[in-house]
Amino acid sequence: MKGSDTVNSFVLKGNICCSDTPDKLRLFDNSYLVCLEGKCRGVFSTLPAEYQSLPLKDYGRNIIIPGLIDLHLHAPQFAFRGIGSDMELLDWLNTYTFPEERKYSDLSYAEKAYSIFTEELRRSATTRAVIFGTIHREATQLLMDKLEASGLVTMVGKVNMDRNAPDYLTETTESSVSETRRWLSESLGKYQRTKPIITPRFVPSCTDELMTALGEISVEYRLPVQSHLSENLSEVAWVKELVPSAETYGHAYEKFNLFGRDVPCVMAHCVHSPEAELALMKKNGVFIAHSPDSNTNLSSGIAPINRYIQMGMKVGLASDVAGGADINMLRMMAESIRASHLRWRLVDSEIPALTFANAFYLATKGGGEFFGKVGSFEPGYEFDALVIDDSTIATPRELSFPERLERLPYLADSRHIRAKYVFGQQLF
Amino acid sequence: MKGSDTVNSFVLKGNICCSDTPDKLRLFDNSYLVCLEGKCRGVFSTLPAEYQSLPLKDYGRNIIIPGLIDLHLHAPQFAFRGIGSDMELLDWLNTYTFPEERKYSDLSYAEKAYSIFTEELRRSATTRAVIFGTIHREATQLLMDKLEASGLVTMVGKVNMDRNAPDYLTETTESSVSETRRWLSESLGKYQRTKPIITPRFVPSCTDELMTALGEISVEYRLPVQSHLSENLSEVAWVKELVPSAETYGHAYEKFNLFGRDVPCVMAHCVHSPEAELALMKKNGVFIAHSPDSNTNLSSGIAPINRYIQMGMKVGLASDVAGGADINMLRMMAESIRASHLRWRLVDSEIPALTFANAFYLATKGGGEFFGKVGSFEPGYEFDALVIDDSTIATPRELSFPERLERLPYLADSRHIRAKYVFGQQLF
Repeated sequence: MKGSDTVNSFVLKGNICCSDTPDKLRLFDNSYLVCLEGKCRGVFSTLPAEYQSLPLKDYGRNIIIPGLIDLHLHAPQFAFRGIGSDMELLDWLNTYTFPEERKYSDLSYAEKAYSIFTEELRRSATTRAVIFGTIHREATQLLMDKLEASGLVTMVGKVNMDRNAPDYLTETTESSVSETRRWLSESLGKYQRTKPIITPRFVPSCTDELMTALGEISVEYRLPVQSHLSENLSEVAWVKELVPSAETYGHAYEKFNLFGRDVPCVMAHCVHSPEAELALMKKNGVFIAHSPDSNTNLSSGIAPINRYIQMGMKVGLASDVAGGADINMLRMMAESIRASHLRWRLVDSEIPALTFANAFYLATKGGGEFFGKVGSFEPGYEFDALVIDDSTIATPRELSFPERLERLPYLADSRHIRAKYVFGQQLF
Repeated sequence: MKGSDTVNSFVLKGNICCSDTPDKLRLFDNSYLVCLEGKCRGVFSTLPAEYQSLPLKDYGRNIIIPGLIDLHLHAPQFAFRGIGSDMELLDWLNTYTFPEERKYSDLSYAEKAYSIFTEELRRSATTRAVIFGTIHREATQLLMDKLEASGLVTMVGKVNMDRNAPDYLTETTESSVSETRRWLSESLGKYQRTKPIITPRFVPSCTDELMTALGEISVEYRLPVQSHLSENLSEVAWVKELVPSAETYGHAYEKFNLFGRDVPCVMAHCVHSPEAELALMKKNGVFIAHSPDSNTNLSSGIAPINRYIQMGMKVGLASDVAGGADINMLRMMAESIRASHLRWRLVDSEIPALTFANAFYLATKGGGEFFGKVGSFEPGYEFDALVIDDSTIATPRELSFPERLERLPYLADSRHIRAKYVFGQQLF
């Protein structure tokens, strides 16, 4: 190493934690975390000679963890977070969501809304996110421009809907496809950190023709896919009516090659997934975006996440704003643990509740895998990190490092994030 | 009215909300809220002539609501909030709680811990609270001194425990009684805002002899009682073993006259209360301190609060720190709604989920009744108010007043409290 101290090569010092396995953390007290050209080189108790010429930032007793990954949220819905959780999914969409999403045909409204959204996401614990826009091509492009400028790494989707939505939010099949292609032609290759993702809203919103075309586009451009799956009981029943030939809701995506067979795919929720659906997801490597805040607010239920982990499924965490009210992914770790406690008590005591180590894994390496080698400090991982100053969370106790970590999901938010690094770049 | 503008007489202007019934809010846009000598005189769209000489503070578009009431929390446990929710109640007590409470035999530790606790409570949305200390008389007195100085109105209990606790936290029956009497002789009449409350920890911690003595003391001094009830299934089964003659856990308090027959009584939790217990509580006017955050963290379950409201029971909200991790009673309103959604989905769809109006009632007038005429802006109520500036919770939308209110439990905390009044005194 010849002191290649570019802006993306440096050393951080502090109390460092990352996941080892889904069940186990690795803790490094007062250690060195090395970033070389945007990638992690590992954690060291003594800084190896080869990295001693790199700039070093000593964060003292601060906690350093991988950046958190939000696998599913809706940028346009940020405007009404905390409002309207008095309904279940389908009514909630018609009453609160669609009227808000309509507004993004107006670029001046989108400018205002997405500026707020992007700035809050930049300041949050999230370093990478998989994001729904609206059906509007131009507003979605605007959102991507803003996210790119923020330094965050994101996948962003122009939503597709050609049925079962209000007229003002329903595309024709043709326009949905052509607008998607135009959006891709304008955004592919334009950004360093912002990537388009194919986004059928959910099966009820898309005709077979549209689904077929989206599956083709996804394969043609090798683009990942995001959508919703088995969130709510009425939704599941409706999909069964709409696509009677599909064995499960998941098979209704698979039928159109939108379920991870050829390209990466992430599905939000999976609260009510039957065995055949899970088996197909496992076979295809489909990611689950677990959204405990949203699933509680919209009375959807509680997904058996620990079972999914034990089955070897790919699972990460999601805020699902605005089904979820909070963009804070630290909090989402707490919500995943809390929901699992209630599921254990009220539904199935055979499935153990999630531990802190489980939740930490979901929010980092579990979800990070959707972005590649992301969410860990193991050598070769893309370098995302949060530096957390918990000294203002007052206590008379001398807390151990594990205790300091454990309380963060319950008590920390953007106020406590002292520094944030995404792919080797310091955002603040 | 002759312009008696003492410090406790004034007018606030803003967007005002208080409960009408448990199901219904009263909203007053851009109106005047009058405090006269520490008591509310009502809300007016035009300020009556008789109050026009009072000092007026115009809070513009800020939201003004009654102060929030925390019916149950443990001051010594604030030190480990956010830590240790990986166990159920009885193991949690032995592993996390008792070792922490032991420390309060050391007054210098108590000084440090209770300074932090009191300052955080003062800055929070809570105006009144019913609080557990520890078994330690001196530390409890210190806590009361600090709370009195804070301007908050509280009831504080020296805890009694003479069995089933570690040696270091077990009193003899005699010392438990004598220390309680000494504590009362030193604290009764000492404070304006801080009142002692009789505090058997729970049935498993107190012998029949101690319970008998505490019942007598409570009646002798006309002091209210606080304890825990039907929180956890193992706890309920244990009480049945310990007091086999009692029909229910509640009857095990009633037997010793510690269940609201002669003096006010508040019981935390009531997650697993059988019908006979509820009937006795209703008859005796026992208050329920609903603690949804704690009941989720400790995997206790979800209390059917809407049923209790419909039965005409007395119910309020509680943080139950550190079973609950968060002291923020705005958040606790959200947690009560959220838990009720899951109960509706997973346990009993016959009991509707709580609405925002329900949760608002629980946090204000429902719990406030334990303090007398508290928790409303109706004439004659003691004047507690929060002024909330939600302008920093960014959104591109023009929100209605109901929408602005609805999002507060999900998104607001002490940062958003611009001013706080307790019994007519402005704390900040």
